[in-house]
Amino acid sequence: MLPALALVPGEPAGVGPELCVRLAQIPRQDCRLVALADPQVLQAAAQALSLPLRLRNEHEATERPGDLRVRPIPHAVSSVFGQTDPRNAASVIQALTAAAQACLDGEFEGMVTGPVHKAAINAGGIAYTGTTELLASHAGREVVMMLANDIVRVALVTTHLPLRQVADAIQPALLRDCLRITRDALRHDFGIADPVIAVLGLNPHAGEAGHLGSEEIEIIEPVLAELRAQDWQLVGPLPADTAFLPQKLSGFDAVLAMYHDQGLPVLKYSGFEHAVNLTLGLPYPRVAVDHGTALELAGRGLADASSLFAATGQCARIALQRRRHHP
Amino acid sequence: MLPALALVPGEPAGVGPELCVRLAQIPRQDCRLVALADPQVLQAAAQALSLPLRLRNEHEATERPGDLRVRPIPHAVSSVFGQTDPRNAASVIQALTAAAQACLDGEFEGMVTGPVHKAAINAGGIAYTGTTELLASHAGREVVMMLANDIVRVALVTTHLPLRQVADAIQPALLRDCLRITRDALRHDFGIADPVIAVLGLNPHAGEAGHLGSEEIEIIEPVLAELRAQDWQLVGPLPADTAFLPQKLSGFDAVLAMYHDQGLPVLKYSGFEHAVNLTLGLPYPRVAVDHGTALELAGRGLADASSLFAATGQCARIALQRRRHHP
Repeated sequence: MLPALALVPGEPAGVGPELCVRLAQIPRQDCRLVALADPQVLQAAAQALSLPLRLRNEHEATERPGDLRVRPIPHAVSSVFGQTDPRNAASVIQALTAAAQACLDGEFEGMVTGPVHKAAINAGGIAYTGTTELLASHAGREVVMMLANDIVRVALVTTHLPLRQVADAIQPALLRDCLRITRDALRHDFGIADPVIAVLGLNPHAGEAGHLGSEEIEIIEPVLAELRAQDWQLVGPLPADTAFLPQKLSGFDAVLAMYHDQGLPVLKYSGFEHAVNLTLGLPYPRVAVDHGTALELAGRGLADASSLFAATGQCARIALQRRRHHP
Repeated sequence: MLPALALVPGEPAGVGPELCVRLAQIPRQDCRLVALADPQVLQAAAQALSLPLRLRNEHEATERPGDLRVRPIPHAVSSVFGQTDPRNAASVIQALTAAAQACLDGEFEGMVTGPVHKAAINAGGIAYTGTTELLASHAGREVVMMLANDIVRVALVTTHLPLRQVADAIQPALLRDCLRITRDALRHDFGIADPVIAVLGLNPHAGEAGHLGSEEIEIIEPVLAELRAQDWQLVGPLPADTAFLPQKLSGFDAVLAMYHDQGLPVLKYSGFEHAVNLTLGLPYPRVAVDHGTALELAGRGLADASSLFAATGQCARIALQRRRHHP
C-alpha cells in the first residue's frame, strides 16, 4: 500500500490551489494524495487553467489525469484569486491543523503544503509566524527548518529573526538540538547511515581565530567537540563564503547555517525550481514548497509547479524510508 | 601604449609568487606588467614549478613566455614555501605601499595583487586588517570592496565585521557613500552609463514590512528614496535569498550586500575560479585575487592561477576604460 499523504493548498487566493490541480494531472505512483481543501476553490483553479479536475471521495481510486481525492475543508467566504480575505484566515489554519492531527493519528504518513500568506493570517486576527512554527507547537516538538534541492541541503539554526538578534540566539542548547534533529533526519528520513554535517561559523571567515568574533571559539567549537566525542561527523565551523564551493559541497550531507541569509542564497541560486522546505523533528514528514503565494500570478496558469511536485516526491520518499526504519 | 600595471605577489611563502610565474608564461596583449617583488622568491617559485622565468629590467621589452619585468623589493629573510616568517611582514607591506604610491604618482595605471597572510603580518608587529583597508588609508579615500565574476558583481557595505556589530554599522551616511562609490565605479570603470544596483535588505525577507526588523524602513528605504530622486536606478531593499535568482540577476549591474556572508556565498559558488576582488573608490584601479595564500599548496605547482589571470585582465580593462573617460 502506498503511503497516504495529506495535501494542503494553503492560501486560497494564491497559486497553491492551481498547483494542486497541476499535481493532480499526473497520477502518482509513489503515494496516495488526499487534498484537505475547499472543493470550490480547487474547481475554480481548474476552471481558470482549463484543466480537468474530478474530485473524489478520499477513499476512492484515482486513476485518470485530473482525479483528486478531497477531504473538504470549506473556507468561510468564496475566494478571489489575487485577493486575500482575512475572513478565510481561520479555515486556512484549520486545514493545516487538521492535516497535522490526522498525521499524528496515523491517518496519513506525511503532509505536503502549499504557500500560506503570513500577513493575511495575521490580518484575520490569528498570530502566525509560519507553518513550521505552527506544526512544531501543535506537535509539541523542537523542529529544524531545512531547505533542500538536488545540489544541497541547508538546515537553519535561526530562521525568521531580525539580524541584530541572531548573535545572541546562537546558544549551545539550541545548536545541540539543531544538530541532533538534523542528524536524526538525515539518518532516518534520508537513509544516510553516518551523515556528514558541515556547520558554518557565525562571523565572516568563521571568526578568523577570534579576530572577527568570538562565538565560534566560545560556543560553536565546544558543541562540535562534545558531539564529535560521540562519533558524529561534523565539519566546521566553516567560513560561509567558501563552504558552498561545489567541490566541498559534494562531501557534505547537509550544511547547518546559523541564520537565514547565510544559508539560503546559494540554495535558491543553485536550484530554486526544485527546492523544497522540510520541517525536521516532527513525528511525521512535512514538506512544503519553497516559494510564496505569488498572488500576482494566481489563477493565470503562469505558476511553476516544480516545487510542489518535488515536495510531494520528497515527502513520499521519506514516508517510505521511515517504514523501512520502523516497519 | 598599453597601460602599465603593478603586480604584487603578496605573501612570499604562499602561492602568490608561483601564480605570478604562471602569469608570465603568457605574454600579455592588454597591459605592461611590472612585478614589485623579491627576484629570488620569483626565481624559487619558477624553479619549484620547472617553469622558465627570465627577469627583466622594468623598462625592457618582454616578448617570450617566461619574461617578467621586475622592480626589486627584497624580503628581509629568504622565504620557505608554506612557512610564513614574521620578519618578512614589513617587506610584504612595503611592496604594497610602493605599488600604491607609484599608482598615485602616475607610474602605473593600476595594481594587481596576490594573497597576503593577515596573521603573518600581524605576527610581524604590523597592525593590518586587509589590503583594501591599507590602500584606502594610504590614499585617504573611502572605498568599497567588490567581488566579481562572470555572473555577478557583489559590493559590500560592511566587510570583516563580527556579525553582532553589523546591524548598528548600517547607517545612512555609510550606505550613501557605498552606493555613490559603487555607482561611480560601474559608470567609470565598467562603462555602464546608467547602472542598475540591487540593494539587499539587512534582515531576512528584507524585514517583511517591519515584522522581521526595522532597518529597511528606518535606514535603507529612506536612503534609496533620496538617491532615486537624483535618478539613480536602485532596486530594493530586496530579500537576499531570492535576489540572486538567475533571472533576477540578469537585470542588475551589481548587488550591494549589507554584510560579508550575505553577499559572498553565491558569488563564490557561481564562479570561484574566475572571481576577483576589486577596491572601488581609489584614484587607481586595484584588483586582487579572490583567494588566500593557500600555504599548504605553495611551491607544489598545484595552485590554480585563474583568479590572478582574471584580476590582471580586469585591471587592464578598467585602466583602458578610465583612459576613455579621462583621456
